[in-house]
Amino acid sequence: MKKILLIILPLFLSGFLFSQKKLVKKPKPVPKFNYYDEFKKISDEVFLHGTAYDNLGELTKGIGPRFSATPGYTKATEWAEKNLKEAGAENIWKQEVRVPVWIRGKESLQIKAGNGDWKNIRMLSFGNSEGTGGKDLTADILLVNDVQELVNLTTTQVKDKIIFVNYPIDPTIVSTVDSYLIAAKSKLLSASVIGKKGAKGLIIRSLTTATDDVPHAKQVYYEPDDKVKIPALTIGVQSANELEKLLKTQTVKAKINMTAESKGETINYNVIGEIPGKKDNKIIVLGAQLDSWDFAEGAHDDGSGVVQCMEVLRTFKALSYSNNHTIRVVLYANSENGGQGRETYAAYVKKKEEKHIFALGSDSGGYSPRGFSLDMSPQRRRLIFPWKEYFLPYGIYDFDQTYAIQDISPLKRLDIPLAEMVVDTQRYFDYHHSEKDTFDKVNKRELLLGATTMTQLIFMIDKNW
Amino acid sequence: MKKILLIILPLFLSGFLFSQKKLVKKPKPVPKFNYYDEFKKISDEVFLHGTAYDNLGELTKGIGPRFSATPGYTKATEWAEKNLKEAGAENIWKQEVRVPVWIRGKESLQIKAGNGDWKNIRMLSFGNSEGTGGKDLTADILLVNDVQELVNLTTTQVKDKIIFVNYPIDPTIVSTVDSYLIAAKSKLLSASVIGKKGAKGLIIRSLTTATDDVPHAKQVYYEPDDKVKIPALTIGVQSANELEKLLKTQTVKAKINMTAESKGETINYNVIGEIPGKKDNKIIVLGAQLDSWDFAEGAHDDGSGVVQCMEVLRTFKALSYSNNHTIRVVLYANSENGGQGRETYAAYVKKKEEKHIFALGSDSGGYSPRGFSLDMSPQRRRLIFPWKEYFLPYGIYDFDQTYAIQDISPLKRLDIPLAEMVVDTQRYFDYHHSEKDTFDKVNKRELLLGATTMTQLIFMIDKNW
Repeated sequence: MKKILLIILPLFLSGFLFSQKKLVKKPKPVPKFNYYDEFKKISDEVFLHGTAYDNLGELTKGIGPRFSATPGYTKATEWAEKNLKEAGAENIWKQEVRVPVWIRGKESLQIKAGNGDWKNIRMLSFGNSEGTGGKDLTADILLVNDVQELVNLTTTQVKDKIIFVNYPIDPTIVSTVDSYLIAAKSKLLSASVIGKKGAKGLIIRSLTTATDDVPHAKQVYYEPDDKVKIPALTIGVQSANELEKLLKTQTVKAKINMTAESKGETINYNVIGEIPGKKDNKIIVLGAQLDSWDFAEGAHDDGSGVVQCMEVLRTFKALSYSNNHTIRVVLYANSENGGQGRETYAAYVKKKEEKHIFALGSDSGGYSPRGFSLDMSPQRRRLIFPWKEYFLPYGIYDFDQTYAIQDISPLKRLDIPLAEMVVDTQRYFDYHHSEKDTFDKVNKRELLLGATTMTQLIFMIDKNW
Repeated sequence: MKKILLIILPLFLSGFLFSQKKLVKKPKPVPKFNYYDEFKKISDEVFLHGTAYDNLGELTKGIGPRFSATPGYTKATEWAEKNLKEAGAENIWKQEVRVPVWIRGKESLQIKAGNGDWKNIRMLSFGNSEGTGGKDLTADILLVNDVQELVNLTTTQVKDKIIFVNYPIDPTIVSTVDSYLIAAKSKLLSASVIGKKGAKGLIIRSLTTATDDVPHAKQVYYEPDDKVKIPALTIGVQSANELEKLLKTQTVKAKINMTAESKGETINYNVIGEIPGKKDNKIIVLGAQLDSWDFAEGAHDDGSGVVQCMEVLRTFKALSYSNNHTIRVVLYANSENGGQGRETYAAYVKKKEEKHIFALGSDSGGYSPRGFSLDMSPQRRRLIFPWKEYFLPYGIYDFDQTYAIQDISPLKRLDIPLAEMVVDTQRYFDYHHSEKDTFDKVNKRELLLGATTMTQLIFMIDKNW
């Protein structure tokens, strides 16, 4: 009997402290033993009635690829409007975004070692890459294994060559997000550096943890003042290993043929849905990217984030939470091939002088959640740390990261505290930006658990900030 | 410069404390800032040179199903001996285990609602179940939804019926290991209770988180004094839902035909390999089950555990660790259909009076690790807690559980401290004990990360206990 009283007493006290807390202005750390029941309610609602998984099936299997400036993206926006409504969003609107029109067209890569025959290699043109105008571009391949080597190359070495950048993801780094960012940030993807030195083309080893031969897309970067924009493409890991081996003993030629071309700009839309706040007009924003690559279902990247954001709204409605602040979902246009959607939204927030108090992103795939990365002031971070114990039963323990992924990152310039869902990353870069990123790679419970923890975090922010 | 000194000093001091510590008898918590480098060495070795994934391919695709008392299991033991040798085990031997011979044979289930037609339903006989002697067993089905209902059934209600136990796994429990154990422990799988009351047969809804129609196997339990052993089988979730719906409005008959039969006993083997201790004869034992169900590759259950245990030995050898205590791997016979392997090993340890100081199991699938469950005295647990910070960069944060899974559990009777790898459980019961538990469901990095953390834990035990 004593034991029961000991448990009930702190619960009662903390409830009392919490209701008192609303009266003071500055948010304070939540007292111990408080929100367990609310967390469980949210979790039960999502696991029992969550629609995120079925929604993801509709988006990936029903609509499929939804690359910017394509009919697939237009279908995705219509679907998003309908589903935000079904989730319970009260205000839904579309926001005009100017996006580049880039058409992949036909593409092929052949290689020839020494006096051997031409051999087809599986490849993908990089997003926004120039093509070869449908003509064969043939040149000797020059192997480059790391960043310093690339930077040190002289014009004489580079001139008229096709450069093969063979920089693998480091398998010894436990978080694949970290190893990916190291490889991607190394600027190896810049076609500008070597274009200026007279290279004819760029072949890049795909940034992936997989060991098969599927190529993984990426956007190419030219500098604004680049006069020569060289064609850039990527090949799978097996082809890269094979090419590396060949190049160690002999001359290898590449024959690239790409009809890829940029055709100006068009209008796409961010899709926005919200439940207005009952107390004030402050905004808590959740975001995910609505587009995918032109050949990909984009199930983990980022169909998962899209349906999880919708699930947060649905759960708030289903549990009849009367949210203090506006809870808004923004589904961004063209995240993969330029990022105009996120810039447009950030500019809109600035212009309208909307007060955003928190932004949450989910763009690392629908895997089991492990934490929230907090890209905000130490003061703000310390307001969230005391909530850790509520999250622990849901597998969320990591609040130590301080990054936010691209779609919410422009909001940082507006001093908005950012958070990003941290998930188990071991599988992500096996599929990322490839044709393998399909619905069957997403596990229903992992996806729902992520949506659960996102809802729990938004709930805490809404009640306490 | 000051910063560097501040870091180096504690490292030096803690190294000093550690070497002093070996002189005293009682193990003490490890001082801060110590084993980071060793942990990283282990991780790098496993991620760069680990053979666990390729070994799992051999076991699942090369050998395939390895049910006890079948040629598949014999092949698996030969393979295990060879691979333990390759991993660097110095002593390798086989341990005789008497196992039951049970042959599934042909099996079918049909149902007929009202005056409708007979319809085939996908099913699996339960392990060790009696058959129908190849004859049709036809009877009305009685639906039972929970444990209490089953226990309360009267002889009149049960007599001559086929009982359909339709108890689902609770989707709202975050850890699927917990929800599975609740459903499994509920004794719903006992054919004895209803056999004694005159039932003719037992149909059980598969214990799975999946929503498809694949049946998931389980072993049936008869009481030793059971004179009537009724046939028991399982059906997938979709069939279970359909059957439940039919039974709510009409009489449904089942026609079971199973040639399953038990044919006495035979000899199988536990396979054991070890690296002898350089300091003493105390033993640290790692275990996994070598067998699988007769229709299953058993990739997660428990091929993953088998190759992870081998990886621990291989890594100790590759890093030239001079282990203080003997590090032994035991691969258990017939874990799925009786558990004779684990009992034989425990009896051997007792008889030989071997001093085991620690037992670690990995039997929850090759998913990303999240912690170690510690089934040991609070005093022992407190010796491990200070190591948490070393494990955190590898995603290991949960040391709060206190269970151990079946294959190492008999060692508890000998007062041996037990630990079990805790992994991300969301996907496990989608595949567990079904034909879907195949090699392609295992992610290489997740499997290797598990092997890494197992090696790290064994390293810490070896150095500090």
